[in-house]
Amino acid sequence: MSTRAEPTALLTDKYELTMLSAALRDGTAQRRTTFELFARRLPDGRRYGVVAGTGRLLEALASFEFDTPALDSVRGFLDPDTVDYLARYRFRGDIDGYAEGELYFPGSPVLTVRGTFAECVVLETLSLSILNHDSAIASAAARMVSAADGRPIIEMGSRRTHEQAAIAAARAAYIAGFAGSSSLAAQRHYGVPALGTSAHAFTLLHTTADGPDECAAFRAQVDALGVNTTLLVDTYDVTTGVASAVAVAGTGLGGVRIDSGDLPALARQVRRQLDDLGARHTRIVVSGDLDEFAIAALRAEPIDSYGVGTSLVTGSGAPTAHMVYKLVEVDGMPVEKRSTRKESHGGYKHALRLARPTGTVLEEIVYPAGRPPATDDAVRILTVPLVRGGEPVVAGDLSAARARVAAGLKSLPWDGLKLSRGEPAIPTTMIAAADHAEEWSRQTPR
Amino acid sequence: MSTRAEPTALLTDKYELTMLSAALRDGTAQRRTTFELFARRLPDGRRYGVVAGTGRLLEALASFEFDTPALDSVRGFLDPDTVDYLARYRFRGDIDGYAEGELYFPGSPVLTVRGTFAECVVLETLSLSILNHDSAIASAAARMVSAADGRPIIEMGSRRTHEQAAIAAARAAYIAGFAGSSSLAAQRHYGVPALGTSAHAFTLLHTTADGPDECAAFRAQVDALGVNTTLLVDTYDVTTGVASAVAVAGTGLGGVRIDSGDLPALARQVRRQLDDLGARHTRIVVSGDLDEFAIAALRAEPIDSYGVGTSLVTGSGAPTAHMVYKLVEVDGMPVEKRSTRKESHGGYKHALRLARPTGTVLEEIVYPAGRPPATDDAVRILTVPLVRGGEPVVAGDLSAARARVAAGLKSLPWDGLKLSRGEPAIPTTMIAAADHAEEWSRQTPR
Repeated sequence: MSTRAEPTALLTDKYELTMLSAALRDGTAQRRTTFELFARRLPDGRRYGVVAGTGRLLEALASFEFDTPALDSVRGFLDPDTVDYLARYRFRGDIDGYAEGELYFPGSPVLTVRGTFAECVVLETLSLSILNHDSAIASAAARMVSAADGRPIIEMGSRRTHEQAAIAAARAAYIAGFAGSSSLAAQRHYGVPALGTSAHAFTLLHTTADGPDECAAFRAQVDALGVNTTLLVDTYDVTTGVASAVAVAGTGLGGVRIDSGDLPALARQVRRQLDDLGARHTRIVVSGDLDEFAIAALRAEPIDSYGVGTSLVTGSGAPTAHMVYKLVEVDGMPVEKRSTRKESHGGYKHALRLARPTGTVLEEIVYPAGRPPATDDAVRILTVPLVRGGEPVVAGDLSAARARVAAGLKSLPWDGLKLSRGEPAIPTTMIAAADHAEEWSRQTPR
Repeated sequence: MSTRAEPTALLTDKYELTMLSAALRDGTAQRRTTFELFARRLPDGRRYGVVAGTGRLLEALASFEFDTPALDSVRGFLDPDTVDYLARYRFRGDIDGYAEGELYFPGSPVLTVRGTFAECVVLETLSLSILNHDSAIASAAARMVSAADGRPIIEMGSRRTHEQAAIAAARAAYIAGFAGSSSLAAQRHYGVPALGTSAHAFTLLHTTADGPDECAAFRAQVDALGVNTTLLVDTYDVTTGVASAVAVAGTGLGGVRIDSGDLPALARQVRRQLDDLGARHTRIVVSGDLDEFAIAALRAEPIDSYGVGTSLVTGSGAPTAHMVYKLVEVDGMPVEKRSTRKESHGGYKHALRLARPTGTVLEEIVYPAGRPPATDDAVRILTVPLVRGGEPVVAGDLSAARARVAAGLKSLPWDGLKLSRGEPAIPTTMIAAADHAEEWSRQTPR
């Protein structure tokens, strides 16, 4: 399995090591730094984002070591002192951040990495890769879950994305509330329920010299998987397919899947046909290029569950969360870039969210760490310790993350769940390091 | 490295194994089948696609085995006969396809997998994941390379995509003609040249109680990496940055990078400033949300190279190639689905491309395997043997793939390289299995 033999330490951009080399040489490598991972904006009119990947990052951090092959591969462009440093490298700093499954907004300090410049700078690419990918998927998935309004959604997009990204996507979708995934690897690695029954190829396989034999395919599937299976009825003609399915499996048939065509019309027609045949409890599963908008548009139809592939694994138009990893503090001094339109806000920060007594959230406040503002509203601190002295202090717990997304969606003001483009669901107030807690400068980053 | 310990055999959807189970039970599992991997359409007005991932697929196929942990994880939903079959599973069939780096069009039979139903059906997800991802990236990358018109492009998008997808993306970009990548893992695993020097964090690190000290950062970088390095000049103010860069490194400075702001205006201004300072050979590198359109728009500016991140790893609006894996032949009989708007074309097919004597391609012809049509035009057969009896018969060769993309772009009619939306650069003629070679039914799939 040569594609998987890389140590995580090489999941790094070359410039992190050349910066390290220069910093070791001029003595700045040991300065105490804080790096912050955040998104300047939400993708294209989204109203919230979902933090995902935190658990995977902590797992990857545990294997972030430069072994001999890794050292050999960087020796060519690094001085011996830097190679020596990397040979002994282990992250020994602290990481704070939003728990996996929390909602986030523009400017939310999703992750804060603290330690020497040397130990923090090399984690940039790995942290961003994992959080940008997984958060993009979870953010899209949460919108689909919210659009499905309680009906289960199955993730089936592995085939449309990189084979390893597929596993992470299934995990992120599950956190966001999907019922399960087609991916066997996601089940094995993360316990995501594996789901799925049959494809058109299986029906087509049952072709003989006399022509197609859909009934033979259905019979084989029912013999192998029982009548509670879901039969795919649209290989040739949906009406014939449904009639054959019930003829073969009986009225106790678990479900039928429709993967093409005019889904609203077909769902109604198939529901009537099933009911007329007495298969009143046979479920209807639909799939085929669904996204959150299509799911919402099907809300009134007699559909029991959805299968979603491409749009899930590609973040439904936003395949990356655009998070960045920025140096915000050096030896206790806030620092920030002044490049045009790319301002970052200096200083080590934490965040909290204010809510009404009903639980509906009002506002997010990002404040200098250790100095939460006084307020009369209900407060929940968002920043929690994740790593201390290089060791994880939280367990990766998918159920807890899943519960957090569900609670987060429930806490949004009603218009925060709208699928249309708009402003973030709640405003974010940034309290600059210099302002102190009494003087808030309200800024809602876009 | 627990995220990487999965065998490739579990990079599979559950339904492939339940179909296998049903087919083993009713005896259809041993039927001789042909599955074809192809794209029904190109993304959103693209004029060509680039096949990539073939080499990675052959590598993954070599590790496609169900080891004990994999078998344990599927035992819960499979009968003992199926588990036994998987325990002995090795793909022993044949694979034909387009060589890595070939251009493709709607309906091109990019990969053809032949063997028993049992051995072919389980390769669906793995094949699609790899080819859909890598081809999407290579297809976007080729447009950027063509827009850059000879200027080098550096891939630096690892941070914006899944950490393993990042490696494959760097590889695909390199095949498409990028000069190299920021990714150390891509260098180690595939020999993609690793490039990169410094980030804003390094300049910000050089902040003292007296304030920012950009010169100290530049000095440290030049001391460590030599004057041929590229200094990032836009952390505070570009004009000051350029002046400091030349003051520190001298007129032999290798390059300056601008990562933000009005790039056309800044490039001209910085070029003038560098020339006035005598740094006539100092190169200008630009980066910051570039895509093929932005690259094309900068063609007239004094820019020496581009850094491209997000848009590359997300396929510049088309993060997946939408390829599908369809059963097209069973025991020598062509089969095809009749679902609404999802027709596939039955039969085992090969393809060739016709060209003018100048080399400019005219048309692609997809024909029943073994029966190429007679023609007076210059012909190049696109389908080549990749695997015979389960063993690869081609070597993964990135240089050859890179040469194929370059040759493919050169062979397109002039409007095939336009960035605007349009029709595929050349039409595709599908000769149906039943038509025989003398009767062509012209269809240009969309």
